[in-house]
Amino acid sequence: MIIATTIDEVRKQVREWKNEGLTVGLCPTMGFLHEGHASLMKASHEQCDRTVASVFVNPIQFGPNEDLDTYPRDFEHDCKIMEEAGVDMVFHPEVSEMYEEDLCTYVDIDVLSETLCGASRAGHFRGVCTVVSKLFNIVTPDKAFFGKKDAQQLAIIKRMVRDLSFGIEIVGCPIVREADGLAKSSRNTYLSEDERKAALILSKTIRMGQTLVGGGERDSLRLREAMMVKLASEPLASPEYVEVVDGSTMQPVETFKEGDLVAMAVRIGDTRLIDNFFVGDPAIEI
Amino acid sequence: MIIATTIDEVRKQVREWKNEGLTVGLCPTMGFLHEGHASLMKASHEQCDRTVASVFVNPIQFGPNEDLDTYPRDFEHDCKIMEEAGVDMVFHPEVSEMYEEDLCTYVDIDVLSETLCGASRAGHFRGVCTVVSKLFNIVTPDKAFFGKKDAQQLAIIKRMVRDLSFGIEIVGCPIVREADGLAKSSRNTYLSEDERKAALILSKTIRMGQTLVGGGERDSLRLREAMMVKLASEPLASPEYVEVVDGSTMQPVETFKEGDLVAMAVRIGDTRLIDNFFVGDPAIEI
Repeated sequence: MIIATTIDEVRKQVREWKNEGLTVGLCPTMGFLHEGHASLMKASHEQCDRTVASVFVNPIQFGPNEDLDTYPRDFEHDCKIMEEAGVDMVFHPEVSEMYEEDLCTYVDIDVLSETLCGASRAGHFRGVCTVVSKLFNIVTPDKAFFGKKDAQQLAIIKRMVRDLSFGIEIVGCPIVREADGLAKSSRNTYLSEDERKAALILSKTIRMGQTLVGGGERDSLRLREAMMVKLASEPLASPEYVEVVDGSTMQPVETFKEGDLVAMAVRIGDTRLIDNFFVGDPAIEI
Repeated sequence: MIIATTIDEVRKQVREWKNEGLTVGLCPTMGFLHEGHASLMKASHEQCDRTVASVFVNPIQFGPNEDLDTYPRDFEHDCKIMEEAGVDMVFHPEVSEMYEEDLCTYVDIDVLSETLCGASRAGHFRGVCTVVSKLFNIVTPDKAFFGKKDAQQLAIIKRMVRDLSFGIEIVGCPIVREADGLAKSSRNTYLSEDERKAALILSKTIRMGQTLVGGGERDSLRLREAMMVKLASEPLASPEYVEVVDGSTMQPVETFKEGDLVAMAVRIGDTRLIDNFFVGDPAIEI
């Protein structure tokens, strides 16, 4: 597995692969990898001749009061996971390799970025779109792989690819969960033992929402209220939102249909966790 | 010369060329081509194996009170010029091929876009950066060619390429002028006979500025004042700005050096014209 720290190294290696007629998959990550990330890399390894993964904690997608400084890092362990998942090249740049101090160009997305997590995380998706555009331009992949846990991010990247005519296929991969149902996240490491137990309220609420939808519920307000009541049963949980939105536009809908998204953000102590399901997806097993 | 109207046609042709190991140059234009545009295409033809020119009047770079509807068009004549200049493929899309109705992704640039033409044309450079990003993603050229007449645009595109890590070399080409000195522009066609004569005040003022700089002037305020006085000698001319800015950042400077930009925008009747020179470039011949 090649470890590249500069943009030039990546471009040179990708050019060689392309000259040999090989296809390239990209898995952008912020590191501290878990089985969710590994599933993206395995999907890329199956679908593309070569797989590039990036490990870069992107400062411009963090707000001033967010967890940039404490975001967990363990590059050595990340390398083991990537190696096992079939990654051919890791791109692991310093911040100064990615951003000049007088950076002034951004990729910005309206509408889709204004709901759900975008409502409370000003500038977050601008930071995401900008870094992903850069990675697309550096790696020029045929396909790029993103997790469905960040469902809004996935919808935004798909829209960005359409609007800016990137010649890249975006592949969304299913949420990977712990045995007890908690969606895998690098931020789970922030949880104390009690909080870890309390965090199960997210997946339990997702499961309950899926049961209601399976029973025929199509009214967003009723579904949201039932899910909020469930979340309120956990004293350590402070819900930020439970929303039902169109699966493509991320705009709230009154009645929902297959492909629409039911998403939540909940604080467990100081840790902000998200979870979701798409209407019509098989119910999660917990 | 291939005339392509869809993104897919362009991608397919470029892919064929790249598979043959050929390099590709791109010349983005809004059509109504003149010798200025032709010089970009000739430069591309010399430096690259294949040249793609785009002819697209980009609606999102026009403000609500600007000349989108009246912008001159003559695709047949454009094709003759492109053919003679050695263009291999023209990309001439409809607006609907380039933009979905619910477009919501934009490439935005701060700082460099806030001075000169950006100060009066809100959103103009956002529209330029967005369409040029799209063209870069569609054509994936090795080099792209832009005229120095739009000096701020050139600086902005260079900065965008750096900030978003496009793997593309940007080549700036000299201003092409009429025999009497007027910088070539598609908008010159708007001028009445009297206005056409009055418009010479721009190149005369540029020439005078170059003479002052050649004589040792390095103070921006004194240079601007002398140039404003010269412009004021023409009753049909209404100057919008005369500015001296850093050649890379487009920020005003008090004293200037080689590589800095002296730029002006002037209305002649209803027609807005621009002209400029970089400090250190050879004086124009008029």
